[in-house]
Amino acid sequence: MASSAPRRALNLSNINAHVKEAKYAVRGELAVRSEEYRAALAKGEGKDLPFDTVIAANIGNPQQLDQKPITFFRQVASLLENPLLLEHEDVLTGQLGYKSDVVERARTLLNEVRSVGAYSQSQGAPGIRESVAKYIERRDGYPASVPDIYLSNGASSGVNTLLHVICASPNTGVMVPIPQYPLYTATLSVLNAKCVPYYLDESSAWGTSLSEVRSSYDKAIAEGTDVKAIAIINPGNPTGASLSAEDIKSVLEFAAEKSLVVIADEVYQTNVFIGEFISFKKALRDLQKASPGKFDSVELASLHSVSKGMVGECGHRGGYFELVGFDPEVAQEIYKFISIQLCPPVLGQCIVELMVNPPKQGEPSYDLYRKEYDGIFNGLRDRAYALYEAFRKMEGVEISEPQGSMYLFPTITLPPKAIAQAEKEGRQPDEFYCFRMLDATGVCVVAGSGFGQRDGSWHFRTTFLAPGTEWVGRIVKFHEGFMGEFK
Amino acid sequence: MASSAPRRALNLSNINAHVKEAKYAVRGELAVRSEEYRAALAKGEGKDLPFDTVIAANIGNPQQLDQKPITFFRQVASLLENPLLLEHEDVLTGQLGYKSDVVERARTLLNEVRSVGAYSQSQGAPGIRESVAKYIERRDGYPASVPDIYLSNGASSGVNTLLHVICASPNTGVMVPIPQYPLYTATLSVLNAKCVPYYLDESSAWGTSLSEVRSSYDKAIAEGTDVKAIAIINPGNPTGASLSAEDIKSVLEFAAEKSLVVIADEVYQTNVFIGEFISFKKALRDLQKASPGKFDSVELASLHSVSKGMVGECGHRGGYFELVGFDPEVAQEIYKFISIQLCPPVLGQCIVELMVNPPKQGEPSYDLYRKEYDGIFNGLRDRAYALYEAFRKMEGVEISEPQGSMYLFPTITLPPKAIAQAEKEGRQPDEFYCFRMLDATGVCVVAGSGFGQRDGSWHFRTTFLAPGTEWVGRIVKFHEGFMGEFK
Repeated sequence: MASSAPRRALNLSNINAHVKEAKYAVRGELAVRSEEYRAALAKGEGKDLPFDTVIAANIGNPQQLDQKPITFFRQVASLLENPLLLEHEDVLTGQLGYKSDVVERARTLLNEVRSVGAYSQSQGAPGIRESVAKYIERRDGYPASVPDIYLSNGASSGVNTLLHVICASPNTGVMVPIPQYPLYTATLSVLNAKCVPYYLDESSAWGTSLSEVRSSYDKAIAEGTDVKAIAIINPGNPTGASLSAEDIKSVLEFAAEKSLVVIADEVYQTNVFIGEFISFKKALRDLQKASPGKFDSVELASLHSVSKGMVGECGHRGGYFELVGFDPEVAQEIYKFISIQLCPPVLGQCIVELMVNPPKQGEPSYDLYRKEYDGIFNGLRDRAYALYEAFRKMEGVEISEPQGSMYLFPTITLPPKAIAQAEKEGRQPDEFYCFRMLDATGVCVVAGSGFGQRDGSWHFRTTFLAPGTEWVGRIVKFHEGFMGEFK
Repeated sequence: MASSAPRRALNLSNINAHVKEAKYAVRGELAVRSEEYRAALAKGEGKDLPFDTVIAANIGNPQQLDQKPITFFRQVASLLENPLLLEHEDVLTGQLGYKSDVVERARTLLNEVRSVGAYSQSQGAPGIRESVAKYIERRDGYPASVPDIYLSNGASSGVNTLLHVICASPNTGVMVPIPQYPLYTATLSVLNAKCVPYYLDESSAWGTSLSEVRSSYDKAIAEGTDVKAIAIINPGNPTGASLSAEDIKSVLEFAAEKSLVVIADEVYQTNVFIGEFISFKKALRDLQKASPGKFDSVELASLHSVSKGMVGECGHRGGYFELVGFDPEVAQEIYKFISIQLCPPVLGQCIVELMVNPPKQGEPSYDLYRKEYDGIFNGLRDRAYALYEAFRKMEGVEISEPQGSMYLFPTITLPPKAIAQAEKEGRQPDEFYCFRMLDATGVCVVAGSGFGQRDGSWHFRTTFLAPGTEWVGRIVKFHEGFMGEFK
């Protein structure tokens, strides 16, 4: 009942319960505490902390750490922001480091968007979507169509859009790999839809097993869930796994059999260390070619982003998704939904264009681009293996060889005393472990419970973006102490 | 039932019905057709069109039209994108037009965000939020606190966030002015919550009448709606009205009486031609000072953006909202919700900083900044009045004097024959009128029915951003023809 005494309208008990239920550990309590440590150290107030730097290994945020932006991208971006530079001799004669292809690209993009300060079409600037379509064609060897490309505010907003349209009722189910990047479970919570978990197979390097997918689907159907879609993250986050051609094929065959929308989160498509990346789009076209008619009804949405890979421009919030096989009337609703938020950041759209259409061999900026790109790739791979080697030596830690993405996701076997202490403190055991690690070392990772894992198994996710190996030593030392303390 | 024959998962009848119900005319069918005309003309395929240019008067998109970006903002932005420029003599000696305060600001912002390609904290970079807090203090004469500032992806994502947290059930009601910017009704549709409309008073220049607000509230309560918030757009979109101190005070008193969250959409706060802008924050603090205790429980969320005003950098998707009087536990949920989408575009955050902390008198870039800012302001006002003068002379058109924002919203009295023809074509009469206008003149406006209006009254919204007055002549000529045709 309304009381006449002034009171607040909102409190924890009457706001949207679905927002409240959503969990997103990547930027949760651990991350917040690590920011407090960072601020304290910056203010010189961290004297009694047992570390002098905070290492943010919790987020795939390359440029907050060691990674330098790719020169070509930023040179073009600077001209897009300040087109007056295009009238300066020094710029045109290369005295400021701008090669002719930088100037050309800036002119082309300005001609396309007119100003990076102007709204574009809600779906993104047509000329930029055309570059994306050409990239997909080169990557897969199959055509892509400009009207099917939707530029987005990072890949996250793309996932948000797709789930908003798919989730029709509290009974709608979306299959999500476990462990998973929590964007999926968090968004399904907000939408009050059902997460239908399928567990990845840690024993086979976090592979996707069809039998597991099938039994999880059957269980959901038996419970009356209306399963509408399956999300796949390839390469995997947090697992770092890279899906085999066989796994991809079996998922697509299953989706065709059960009429499931396939949401292929492929933002790590260039972060592959073992084997080669195969896109769901290519795999689907191969199947359609091999068995005409049988796969025509498959709806695939594949997402990519400028945030990861060697680009690492996550602060620019650029991304895209491609729709394959969607009903045009449904696509219209997707357009309307995104138009309510007007358009993705236009500079982010331009970074997408640069990512999918980088300097080509023989062009003035190519050699530097190649050098920078390969340098970043090799640095990531080397750090991944250095971390891998360190982790496999740690007592009670199991880890599979790095295959891709930006993460390692080791299993930790925690002593019963540690688990008991965690319970006392009202935390998940791996969360307790990660807090202890942060407090002791300043290294911030994310507990496996933030991504989901099989009951009784414990993990943590760390990026391998932080420079050097000193911080790895901190983890090893902490782990020894922790295992000793709770032995 | 699942059939064994392959079929699509999604069709118009089984996707999220609330997404389907959402309406957003600003970028709807009219806008899409105008883009088709633009594309045809660009390809030289528009020979038989009765116009040679398309005028996008449907969206407040300054830089797509005549408005030039403010030099200081873009110079700083170009250095943020390409920090290597900070090492060049020519840049530091000003030969490229970069004054010392441009270089200083770029260094300060880079020091704050490290790289515009890196994620920031989800709430936005702390140093930038500090600048926002100082701006609010200067504007209102009351302190603002950094933890209460949330940087956002334009103001639209801020509204989306607030409504997500507020809308707890299909029975939750949010009071929305009619006519309104359709972001509000569209988002409430998506959230399956109730729009509680209160009609603005066209007879008093689209003022907000407390008696209307009260009767609309009482009616909703009588129907069992749980009214939780009231949205105010000041200066008004689409109406262009600028709220009086009295109106603002009465809304706040009503919100206190009924425990309603006040959502103050103040993105046009610098677009005021008559009187001066009064923020809801200042008005609330004044009330709290005048009657201690009485207004302490009021929750206010006020939004601002880089998209409008003299900045007009909508493509950069920068904005912020300030929370006043919210329960800290609720604020925590707001933080979690925004963290799922990681962070707003970092360059957009930097543009927010430049907007709220522009060059000051005596600083090297001040004179040019002042000149550009005033030039844009005067140009907008002059075009507003030119359009106003043209519209008042049109038969069957009524319009009130421009007060602010970027829009005029004339009433059009349509002949019965036109209304009958509209019905035949299955359109709202004003929508029919706007399509006829677009087809005849290439000028794209938005029908009043896209914003809501009293039954039987018809309007259209036009921006006054497009350069020159030739296009105004096109509208006048079309209108004469239209009225003649349907007399």
